[in-house]
Amino acid sequence: MTAYDRLAARFARIATVQEAAAMLGWDAAAMMPPGGAAARGDQLAVLAGLSHGLLTAPDVGDDLAAAEAAGSDDPWQAANLRLMRHAWLRATAVPGDLVEAQARANSACEKIWRDARRDSDFARVVPALAEVVNLTRQQAEALSSALGLTPYDALMDGYQRGIGAADVAPVFAAYRDFLRDALPRAEEAQARRAAPVRPEGPFPAEQQEALCRRLSAEAGLEPAHSRLDRSVHPFCGGTPTDVRITTRYDEADFAQALMGVMHETGHALYERGLPEAHARQPVGEAAGMAAHESQSLIIEMQACRSDAYLGWLAPLLHQTFDGDPAPYEAENLGRLWRRVRRGFIRVDADEMTYPAHVILRFGLEQALITGDLRVRDLPGAWNDGLRDLLGITPPDDARGCLQDIHWYDGAIGYFPSYTLGAMAAAQLMAAARRAVPDLDAALGRGDLGPLVGWLRVHVHHRGSLLGFNDLLHEATGKPLDPADFEAHLTARYLI
Amino acid sequence: MTAYDRLAARFARIATVQEAAAMLGWDAAAMMPPGGAAARGDQLAVLAGLSHGLLTAPDVGDDLAAAEAAGSDDPWQAANLRLMRHAWLRATAVPGDLVEAQARANSACEKIWRDARRDSDFARVVPALAEVVNLTRQQAEALSSALGLTPYDALMDGYQRGIGAADVAPVFAAYRDFLRDALPRAEEAQARRAAPVRPEGPFPAEQQEALCRRLSAEAGLEPAHSRLDRSVHPFCGGTPTDVRITTRYDEADFAQALMGVMHETGHALYERGLPEAHARQPVGEAAGMAAHESQSLIIEMQACRSDAYLGWLAPLLHQTFDGDPAPYEAENLGRLWRRVRRGFIRVDADEMTYPAHVILRFGLEQALITGDLRVRDLPGAWNDGLRDLLGITPPDDARGCLQDIHWYDGAIGYFPSYTLGAMAAAQLMAAARRAVPDLDAALGRGDLGPLVGWLRVHVHHRGSLLGFNDLLHEATGKPLDPADFEAHLTARYLI
Repeated sequence: MTAYDRLAARFARIATVQEAAAMLGWDAAAMMPPGGAAARGDQLAVLAGLSHGLLTAPDVGDDLAAAEAAGSDDPWQAANLRLMRHAWLRATAVPGDLVEAQARANSACEKIWRDARRDSDFARVVPALAEVVNLTRQQAEALSSALGLTPYDALMDGYQRGIGAADVAPVFAAYRDFLRDALPRAEEAQARRAAPVRPEGPFPAEQQEALCRRLSAEAGLEPAHSRLDRSVHPFCGGTPTDVRITTRYDEADFAQALMGVMHETGHALYERGLPEAHARQPVGEAAGMAAHESQSLIIEMQACRSDAYLGWLAPLLHQTFDGDPAPYEAENLGRLWRRVRRGFIRVDADEMTYPAHVILRFGLEQALITGDLRVRDLPGAWNDGLRDLLGITPPDDARGCLQDIHWYDGAIGYFPSYTLGAMAAAQLMAAARRAVPDLDAALGRGDLGPLVGWLRVHVHHRGSLLGFNDLLHEATGKPLDPADFEAHLTARYLI
Repeated sequence: MTAYDRLAARFARIATVQEAAAMLGWDAAAMMPPGGAAARGDQLAVLAGLSHGLLTAPDVGDDLAAAEAAGSDDPWQAANLRLMRHAWLRATAVPGDLVEAQARANSACEKIWRDARRDSDFARVVPALAEVVNLTRQQAEALSSALGLTPYDALMDGYQRGIGAADVAPVFAAYRDFLRDALPRAEEAQARRAAPVRPEGPFPAEQQEALCRRLSAEAGLEPAHSRLDRSVHPFCGGTPTDVRITTRYDEADFAQALMGVMHETGHALYERGLPEAHARQPVGEAAGMAAHESQSLIIEMQACRSDAYLGWLAPLLHQTFDGDPAPYEAENLGRLWRRVRRGFIRVDADEMTYPAHVILRFGLEQALITGDLRVRDLPGAWNDGLRDLLGITPPDDARGCLQDIHWYDGAIGYFPSYTLGAMAAAQLMAAARRAVPDLDAALGRGDLGPLVGWLRVHVHHRGSLLGFNDLLHEATGKPLDPADFEAHLTARYLI
């Protein structure tokens, strides 16, 4: 057995333990009775510990060195080895006591944050968040030395390899400029059109669920390899051969579940399309969170909210839910489901203003990590930033810097992924349209096949062979470029 | 940290990994899409390997010796240490290559058995079963030396500690004598009564499920700590704080699901009642498979099929399912659900003839392990045995020695647990009736509380502090004794 083979066997074992944890995580959100929570926490902690132990065992460093010395002509194997080294560096760079301190601090801060958000009382969470930021900076510095990245990039790297703040900053700056001009124009264009009409419910959850199942399956997610269940926070979990997606149903409005399920279906199709030959190896995994978000958004935002798809979907919706046909006109649904509005809350934002929320957080979290921004000064910086980006000021911190769980749970460096994903989705869609001439005609028949087929070849089957920017470059001919996203928004909102 | 504390931490870790595996096992049966099966097999194998690795790590032997030398005045701690030693002896006694060979042989034989049973072609499975038996004998001999038990008892011990073939044989012999006289008399008594009438369906699965949920919760199984789902083979899985029971629904007959759920509720209540102070320690686990079966059967057979409970249940059933009231008379349901019939199939047997099926297998599997019976002679021995016990001869091997999966999957020594559990259930019920005078009055109000309360103290809370016979002795004043079971059958079927 070569050193590489030993490593491959070890990483397969680690991935298998992580599959078990993924299933238990899904169960906790979708199935578990409340009384199981404490035991579940222990189960996940023990599996994480076993997985970490396998990754940091004494043999691994020697095997990595030996396999690197032996080299490989196979690009997949070479990339896999680099990713093994990368995973090992990340796992060994941060001292065990810092990892534990972070777990404790994140968990404590998240609990305080829940009350602080409820009461819109930022002061209450300042000490806990300061500790989270302090420990995250230590983690970032440890990772920075090991990986040869800036501290903030070392954090970003934990969510999305292959792109850093220096790549992102000009893209976001360009988008900020675009938005300053485009947002008022989109609002004007919207004001000139008739106000959309909401279909009237109630829409029974069972009926919505049956429709979601059908649409998800028609988009290519095989029922033999997936489940659709309910959870408070929709997500895509499970494993590549057994993907578990969830949603929640609002009986007054079916759009949330419907578009939510298509979003999760996009994530699920990515998992299903990962290269089987490299299953359970680092190179066989999805390319990162931004890449993942590009796959959910290309299905939801690019395909399913397109005029073509809505033209096919609208009569099916009316057939399903019945009632007054007028709100089910495709054109009305388009106006209803593609509405620009300056708002305080990121998760409620439309696709044009969403990046502003991310750009705000991208700036602030870098400043927290460099130390240029103190935690106690966060509310003011937040409100100034939002005013500058969207011209509105949050009425309170609950609708400002307290709204998202991320930082309070120690997730710093994650926010850019949302917008990188949205931009990549538009860039991939433009490339797919160039490559597959009948793509929109197919969408008009409710057929996502040509799009998904193209994504399989250019994104899904590539696994983690390439980092984010290289993946985009090979698939679309250029690295991340906001132009396609801006063109998409211009076509959808400004004309 | 003392050696004992190190061991306790290690066993808690092992138990937590096993909890994860239990949840994944439940998921595989109740939730998993078929495409997830291959990955799930790997996940369970890796968790089993990690758990085995933790149990057989080099430190464990030294820690056991040190903790034993230190001793303990606490009976729970002393028992826990004995059980740790016992688990370690079982895990280390059998060489790794034999364990692997058994896993392969059992899996191969089970596959061939499925076809052989379908075609009633015993000859086809003879070589594979011979290999399973051969390897199981090697395993039994290895365990025998380590545990100081006979080879067959060493196998039984894997399912139920604290009772061996020498204890079981006279009990089963006595029952055989009882049955020879009682069965014809029960048949005569039954023939003198009116034939029962079946309630007419269909009974929608949703309605059955709602009723099962209600009855299970009223029996004391808290929804905050349990789930009821569907699976092809009903079972009780999960963990003590998150018990997962399953059933299947036949829309033509609700009795199967109803009594099945009460059976699994009995198992679940046992898990829920295990001593929290010893959670995840060997001494905190259920006392074995026979003890577990006693808890499902005392709820299903002793309580829920009693005249008192049926008197309460009957009007509720009619209220639920409506239709002609006559079949819903408690007296009719009693005749319908407590019917003696000599049959070929163990899993379809009534409570009086069921032990005959077990007694047959108990004799045959001992003879297979000693070598007194060759695999190829099994059909003849089976048919002779069944004729002797019940006076009937299977028309083919599918309804004879091919009917049960157990031996073909390597489970030898398990069968006695069913009947030990049935006898223990009657013995415990008799003791509970003596101790709790209003027990039957409560059952007549649909209230299992007094019974379950007594079981909690005398069985559930005791965990694995005692072996099977000692547990019975402390709870009922005597070791296993078929007299209470025979008295129960006499009262129910002969009078």
